[in-house]
Amino acid sequence: MSSQTKIKKDKEIIAEYETQVKEIRNQLVEQFKCLEQQSEARIQLLQDLQEFFRRKAEIQLEYSRSLEKLAERFSSKIRGPRKEQHLLSSVNCWYLVLSQTRRESRDHATLNDIYINNVIVRLAQISEDVIRLFKKSKEIGIQMHEELVKVTNELYTVMKTYHMYHTESISAESKLKEAEKQEEKQFSKSGDLNVNLLRHEDRPQRRSSVRKIEKMKEKRQAKYSENKLKCTKARNDYLLNLAATNAVVAKYYIHDVSDMIECCDLGYHASLARTLRTYLSAEYNLETSRHEGLDIIENAVDNLDPRSDKHKIMDMYNQVFCPPMRFEFLPHMGDEVCQVSAQQPVQTELLMRYHQLQSRLATLKIENEEVRKTLDATMQTLQDMLTVEDFDVSDAFQHSRSTESIKSVASESYMSKLNIAKRRSNQQETEVFYFTKFKEYLNGSNLIIKLQAKHDLLKQTLGKEKEPNVELQDPQPFPRNHRNCGNQGLVPSITISCLTAIWRVSLRILVNPFLWWWRAVYVTLIYMGCNNKAYSEFLDLRWKSTI
Amino acid sequence: MSSQTKIKKDKEIIAEYETQVKEIRNQLVEQFKCLEQQSEARIQLLQDLQEFFRRKAEIQLEYSRSLEKLAERFSSKIRGPRKEQHLLSSVNCWYLVLSQTRRESRDHATLNDIYINNVIVRLAQISEDVIRLFKKSKEIGIQMHEELVKVTNELYTVMKTYHMYHTESISAESKLKEAEKQEEKQFSKSGDLNVNLLRHEDRPQRRSSVRKIEKMKEKRQAKYSENKLKCTKARNDYLLNLAATNAVVAKYYIHDVSDMIECCDLGYHASLARTLRTYLSAEYNLETSRHEGLDIIENAVDNLDPRSDKHKIMDMYNQVFCPPMRFEFLPHMGDEVCQVSAQQPVQTELLMRYHQLQSRLATLKIENEEVRKTLDATMQTLQDMLTVEDFDVSDAFQHSRSTESIKSVASESYMSKLNIAKRRSNQQETEVFYFTKFKEYLNGSNLIIKLQAKHDLLKQTLGKEKEPNVELQDPQPFPRNHRNCGNQGLVPSITISCLTAIWRVSLRILVNPFLWWWRAVYVTLIYMGCNNKAYSEFLDLRWKSTI
Repeated sequence: MSSQTKIKKDKEIIAEYETQVKEIRNQLVEQFKCLEQQSEARIQLLQDLQEFFRRKAEIQLEYSRSLEKLAERFSSKIRGPRKEQHLLSSVNCWYLVLSQTRRESRDHATLNDIYINNVIVRLAQISEDVIRLFKKSKEIGIQMHEELVKVTNELYTVMKTYHMYHTESISAESKLKEAEKQEEKQFSKSGDLNVNLLRHEDRPQRRSSVRKIEKMKEKRQAKYSENKLKCTKARNDYLLNLAATNAVVAKYYIHDVSDMIECCDLGYHASLARTLRTYLSAEYNLETSRHEGLDIIENAVDNLDPRSDKHKIMDMYNQVFCPPMRFEFLPHMGDEVCQVSAQQPVQTELLMRYHQLQSRLATLKIENEEVRKTLDATMQTLQDMLTVEDFDVSDAFQHSRSTESIKSVASESYMSKLNIAKRRSNQQETEVFYFTKFKEYLNGSNLIIKLQAKHDLLKQTLGKEKEPNVELQDPQPFPRNHRNCGNQGLVPSITISCLTAIWRVSLRILVNPFLWWWRAVYVTLIYMGCNNKAYSEFLDLRWKSTI
Repeated sequence: MSSQTKIKKDKEIIAEYETQVKEIRNQLVEQFKCLEQQSEARIQLLQDLQEFFRRKAEIQLEYSRSLEKLAERFSSKIRGPRKEQHLLSSVNCWYLVLSQTRRESRDHATLNDIYINNVIVRLAQISEDVIRLFKKSKEIGIQMHEELVKVTNELYTVMKTYHMYHTESISAESKLKEAEKQEEKQFSKSGDLNVNLLRHEDRPQRRSSVRKIEKMKEKRQAKYSENKLKCTKARNDYLLNLAATNAVVAKYYIHDVSDMIECCDLGYHASLARTLRTYLSAEYNLETSRHEGLDIIENAVDNLDPRSDKHKIMDMYNQVFCPPMRFEFLPHMGDEVCQVSAQQPVQTELLMRYHQLQSRLATLKIENEEVRKTLDATMQTLQDMLTVEDFDVSDAFQHSRSTESIKSVASESYMSKLNIAKRRSNQQETEVFYFTKFKEYLNGSNLIIKLQAKHDLLKQTLGKEKEPNVELQDPQPFPRNHRNCGNQGLVPSITISCLTAIWRVSLRILVNPFLWWWRAVYVTLIYMGCNNKAYSEFLDLRWKSTI
């Protein structure tokens, strides 16, 4: 190593060292600047977050108030007239939509409250913490930097000591070498003398000069050794301090800087995380609440039921839909005959009429059954149109696309004007056909029911009532909308006035949900030609399947 | 039956019948009114829903615009200065909060679009349907009512016919009875004559009057039979029509009214359900989208990492945190000795100094280890305070309570001013103690590292370097924040200039994430007294656990 090194003087070495120390000091200054910048960036971020949440809280409150106003406007409308309507499943959905709006309003107000009184307060605290911790960390950093200054100063001192002793050692060495040269010169002189003749008077003079030189050499030797030892000790000190300084510098760059930054960071991430988790907790809870409300509405939509609504309306207006008393036979001037007379000579005629009715009915029923089938098929087509699952709008919320294309997706496809017009004209055509067929069916069934009533009465009169009533015992269930008409017989006059009395009383006593059932029983009993068996069968088959 | 019935005349019967028919007609009128009311209620409901969704769409748009403005205001701030900051995990959270705000803005705009272009359009269509179907159902109803009028009129007619023939039958009967009385009178007269003497001249006169009476009786008998037959037929007709009329009335009240209401309802519930499902689909999708966004933020919050942020900052400012060149031994004026000299006479002194250092270090390490333990415990206390799970705000969204009590729940409890002040003063006290202890620890470890460096150099010099370096092989992991200082030895001068060159080049070439690792390797190699084994152990134990 030493062989290649350029011989350096004190000043060069000191300059080199000072440059190196100056570089380190510059870095230390820059490090503080960097930490300060980071703290400022954090404070800026926290201020932005506070401003952001303050404004977002305002937006939540505006939104909440708008929703509240909206819900209130329609709720007050409801509180007014038509109170009984709330029983209807469709009206129930509307009420739930309003109540969901109120719920959203409340939740967004809560969000506002949490932003203002929790999130923003936390953010302000973190700002304080950042400022305080930066100050404290800087104190720590100053202590670290002082230590670095101290060790480099110490190194500078021991290095200068080494330089001084090494200079002295070099000069002592050169002086010693000079003395050795003189001694050698003296030696070579005396060697010449020994070879030549020794002059007596010369000897003492020469001897004293040799002794003088030797004395000087010894003195210089001692001085050299002393300086060399001092230099060795100084070099050792320099080397030991060098190791210590390098260790302290390394420790600073590897650990201490990192520790100082950590002091600055103390709790910053944890507190920010807690603040953001508060925000997230609020948002997630808002979402859960919304979801619960939507589920309630969805349940109500699942329960939208035309049949139950129809019954509710008929119960609400039971006076209007209550069947009237049946028309009784009113005997004229005390006429004692009050049943169809089938004595001769009318018997033959009645029998003929009975058979005519029978065959006419058979034909009519076949014809009307055909109409009914067409009607059912048309209804099925209509139902398919009316229950098509066209309500999924998830495409509109795909965030992979741009905002513009989303909008077009939401309004195009199913809800495009062309599509709507096409579907609606199609639906209305089917509807027109349905109503035409329905009228046809109605005419047919009205005719059938009249002829059937006459036919059944004649059958009874002509002594054919013992034959099993096949139609009443037929267990085949009815189609959803259209009933095989013509099974109402005549009621024996028993207990009708009694039942009527019960009916009138029950109207006042019984709660609404039972009214429909009661009317059903009442109507059945009044209009049916019933032996008990036929009656119970009628109840089982007809009412259970249609009510 | 007939025995109790009061004998009723035509007019009474007709009046009774007409009353009953009138009642039915009144009901029919009321039924139409009721259906009309229901349709009107529906149209009102649909109008309310349309108005509601129109206003709600406006609210969504206002909300969306406010959020967009808010996000834009802060996003534009970001696009400006301090671009490199986005790498930091805390700044990343802020960006995601903004991007979530933009997402919410977009989603609420989509909601507005779906309300306007889908939900409201559907509701308007349902309104049209309700109006059209009510009209068509009324037509059907009119047809049904006409049928009822027709059968009751027919019944009226046959009833009147029965009355007429019955009246005639009664009068024929009474005339017949009169004739029979006369005949009887005649008979009793002729009996008296038979008992007394029959006068010849009286006989032909009597005979002609008997014949006359008999003739009249026969005539009246025939008339009576004829009228009775007519009456029987008329009564039969009346009874048959009565059965038919009752059957038609019953059918109307049991089935037809219900069918008419169903015609009115046709598709109403299904279409309303589809509309509400569209609304629900939009709301559920909004929620899913929000949830996805919140999950992204939550993930970023989970990844808030002070260590990685610290490394990123040090990489961003690598010039500032890059360790300087180590201080080299600078030989003075070509001094060829460049290592600690342990020749006599300094050897004894060095040995003594070595032993002094050894014992001093042992004491210092024990003392500093105590300080470190206190420091760690204090840090743990601080960490516990900083990571307390105080962010759950679900209580604020409990809808079982009133709005007022919710508000107080959200702001009281954890975030009350008293609680905040208490927690913060507690936290800051601990912090002050931590920093005091940290300074103490720093002083101790700085002293240790210096003495250790000197000790290690002396050990090496005095020929004790062959002893195994126990501390470097100690596999015990370091505490999180504080390192056992004093393990940096001296680096042999090999390859350092080479590594430095690589380092300088790598600063320009390598991407940021590798910088920290590179600096670590570089610093390690520069400052470590390394045989390969010690070096790799150092890397394994120290860096893996602290970087």
